[in-house]
Amino acid sequence: MPTNQRWLLTARPVDIPGPQHFVADAVPARAPHAGEALLETLYLSIDPAMRSWMSAGTLYQQAIPLGEVMRGGGIARVLESRAEGLAAGDVVQARLGWQSHPTLAARYLQKIDLGLGTIEDWIGPLGLSAVTAYFGLRDIGALRPNDRVLVSAAAGGVGQVAVQIARIEACRVAAIAGGAEKCAYARDALGAHATIDYKAEADLSAAIARACPDGIDLYFDNVGGATLDAALEHLRENARVVLCGRISQTAAAEPYGIRNLGKLAAVHGRMQGFLVFGYHARYDEARTWLAARLRDGSLRQRLHVLEGLAQAPLGLRMLFRGENMGKLVVRVAS
Amino acid sequence: MPTNQRWLLTARPVDIPGPQHFVADAVPARAPHAGEALLETLYLSIDPAMRSWMSAGTLYQQAIPLGEVMRGGGIARVLESRAEGLAAGDVVQARLGWQSHPTLAARYLQKIDLGLGTIEDWIGPLGLSAVTAYFGLRDIGALRPNDRVLVSAAAGGVGQVAVQIARIEACRVAAIAGGAEKCAYARDALGAHATIDYKAEADLSAAIARACPDGIDLYFDNVGGATLDAALEHLRENARVVLCGRISQTAAAEPYGIRNLGKLAAVHGRMQGFLVFGYHARYDEARTWLAARLRDGSLRQRLHVLEGLAQAPLGLRMLFRGENMGKLVVRVAS
Repeated sequence: MPTNQRWLLTARPVDIPGPQHFVADAVPARAPHAGEALLETLYLSIDPAMRSWMSAGTLYQQAIPLGEVMRGGGIARVLESRAEGLAAGDVVQARLGWQSHPTLAARYLQKIDLGLGTIEDWIGPLGLSAVTAYFGLRDIGALRPNDRVLVSAAAGGVGQVAVQIARIEACRVAAIAGGAEKCAYARDALGAHATIDYKAEADLSAAIARACPDGIDLYFDNVGGATLDAALEHLRENARVVLCGRISQTAAAEPYGIRNLGKLAAVHGRMQGFLVFGYHARYDEARTWLAARLRDGSLRQRLHVLEGLAQAPLGLRMLFRGENMGKLVVRVAS
Repeated sequence: MPTNQRWLLTARPVDIPGPQHFVADAVPARAPHAGEALLETLYLSIDPAMRSWMSAGTLYQQAIPLGEVMRGGGIARVLESRAEGLAAGDVVQARLGWQSHPTLAARYLQKIDLGLGTIEDWIGPLGLSAVTAYFGLRDIGALRPNDRVLVSAAAGGVGQVAVQIARIEACRVAAIAGGAEKCAYARDALGAHATIDYKAEADLSAAIARACPDGIDLYFDNVGGATLDAALEHLRENARVVLCGRISQTAAAEPYGIRNLGKLAAVHGRMQGFLVFGYHARYDEARTWLAARLRDGSLRQRLHVLEGLAQAPLGLRMLFRGENMGKLVVRVAS
C-alpha cells in the first residue's frame, strides 16, 4: 500500500491560519472495504471557508475536531475500487481532506465529466469557487443586463469569475483588488471596465465614486468590513448586495462596525448572505453554463498552483494575506 | 375666508426635531381655482419619516425648503370645491402639510371610503403606518405561518400593526418596546407572545435569546443601531431582516457600527430596506386586508391623540423621544 501523507489540524486560529495550526504525519493508506475506493489526490482547493471550519464551523459544516485531518475539497484519481460504477483510473471530486491517499466511501465521490472540461478546469473555472460566483450573482444578486456591478477581491478565486460573468451578461463591472498587478489582470484578462487598487487609495469611497460614476446596482462582496461600508454609500435604487465572503474580517483585531446600512434602507436595497452548499442540487446547472463559456472563450480562470501537499498550510496563509494571484490550488500529484 | 394656521420649517434638525425648528403663522385661506378644493384639516399623522424630510430628504421626497409649510400627511374635509367629482363635505386624505386650511389641487386628494372604516381608522389602522407594516412583513419579509418574528418599537405606529399581522398569520411574535406600559400593551392588547423592555435590559442580546429561544426567522426593525446588531446574533437559517426605520440613529452623536453582518451571511439571511411609497399602486390591497381584520376584531390600533395644530412640533419631539403610546396623531378639527 502507498503511504498516506496527511496534515492534521492541531490548533484553532485566532486570526490568519497557517503552518502553526497543523502537523504533518504519514500512515499506510487503508485498503478499501466494500463500497469504498482508495484514491490518489491530484489537486486540493484552498478556500476562505476553510478558516471557519478550523474554528467555529458554519451552518453546513461543523468545526474540524483537533487532531483530525484538515478538511478540504479537491480532485483525485481512483487507485483501487470496491464500489460499483467506480473503476481504477476514474477521476472524482470530493471532500478529500489534506491527504495524499484517502480511502473514502463511494457515495461521497462524484465522478467528474472530462468531456465538460479538463482536470484543471474542474479545480478552476468549473470548481466550487466558480459555482459560488454563478449562484451569488444570478440567484442572490438577481443580475440583470446593464447593471452597474462592483466586485471586491476581484482577482481571487470567486471574484475573477464574478467579474467575468457580469461582463458576459452585458453589465458594467468595476473591480477592487490589491496591487497594480491584480488590477491589470482584472482589466486586461477579465474585462473589468474600471479597477480600484485598494492598497493605493486613501479614500476608498472616493475611489469607488470615480470607478462607479453612476453608482452601484449590485455589489458582490468578498471582503466585508470597511470596503463593504464604502460600497454601501454608492448604492442605487433597488441595489443588491451579495455577502459572499468577509476575508478582511478574519485577521481584524476587532470586527469593523458597518455604519451605512441607512443607505441600504433609503434606496430600497437588499443585502443577502449565502453559502454555496445550499445550491448543491443545482451545481450541474452552473457547470453547464460555465463550461459553455469556457468553450466559447469568454470565460477563463487563472490558477495559482502550489506544488506539493507540503505547501498546503503555507497556501492557506497566502490566501488570507492576499498573496495569491488567481484561484489558489495545491497540486499533490499529476 | 377662514384663517389658515400654519407651521413653517425654519431650521434643519441635527438630532431630535422639535418646536425649535418651526415658526407658526396665520394667513387668510386661499379661495380655490378651477380644479382645486379648499380643505379643513381634521387629523395630521406624526411619522418618523418627517425627520428625513426636514434635513436631507429621501429617495422619494426632497428636503422641505426652509420657510415653507412643514410637510405631513393627514385627513381633511372639503369646505369648497371647484373640482369635478369632489363636493363640500367629502373627506379626503392627502399630503396636507401642517396647516389648518390648505387649498390643494384635486389630483393630490384621495377621497376616503368611509365604508371601509371611520376617519379615525383611516388615520390609524388603515393609514400609511399600517400599510407600511403590511408590505414590510409580507412583501419584504416574506412572512410565513410559524415564523419566529421579532418586532422593535412594537408599540409604535408601524410596530403595533406589525405585531398583530404576524400574530394573525399564525407566527410566534416577540416585541421590543421601551417601558413596562408599552410591553404590557404589546402583550395584552396586541397579542405578542413575549416582550422585551429594552430600557430595563443591560444585555439586549441575552434578553432576545430569552424571548426568542428558537431564534428569529423575521426581524422587523424600526430602530436600527445596537438593537439591530443584537437581533442579528439570533437569526435562523434563511432569516429575513426588514429595515423599516432607524429611529435610534436619529439622535445618535455618531452612527452605530453594525458588527454582526457575518451572522447574516452565515445563515443565508436577507436584509432589505424599503419605503412604503414604492408600493403606492398597491395601497388598496393592503387597506382591503387591514379593513377585513378590523371588522373581524383581530386588528386594532391605539391612537395617541394630541389636541390642536399647536401641538404638532411637540408631537414630533415626543415621537423621537419614544414618549408616545400608540400611533401619534394631531387632531386639528373634529
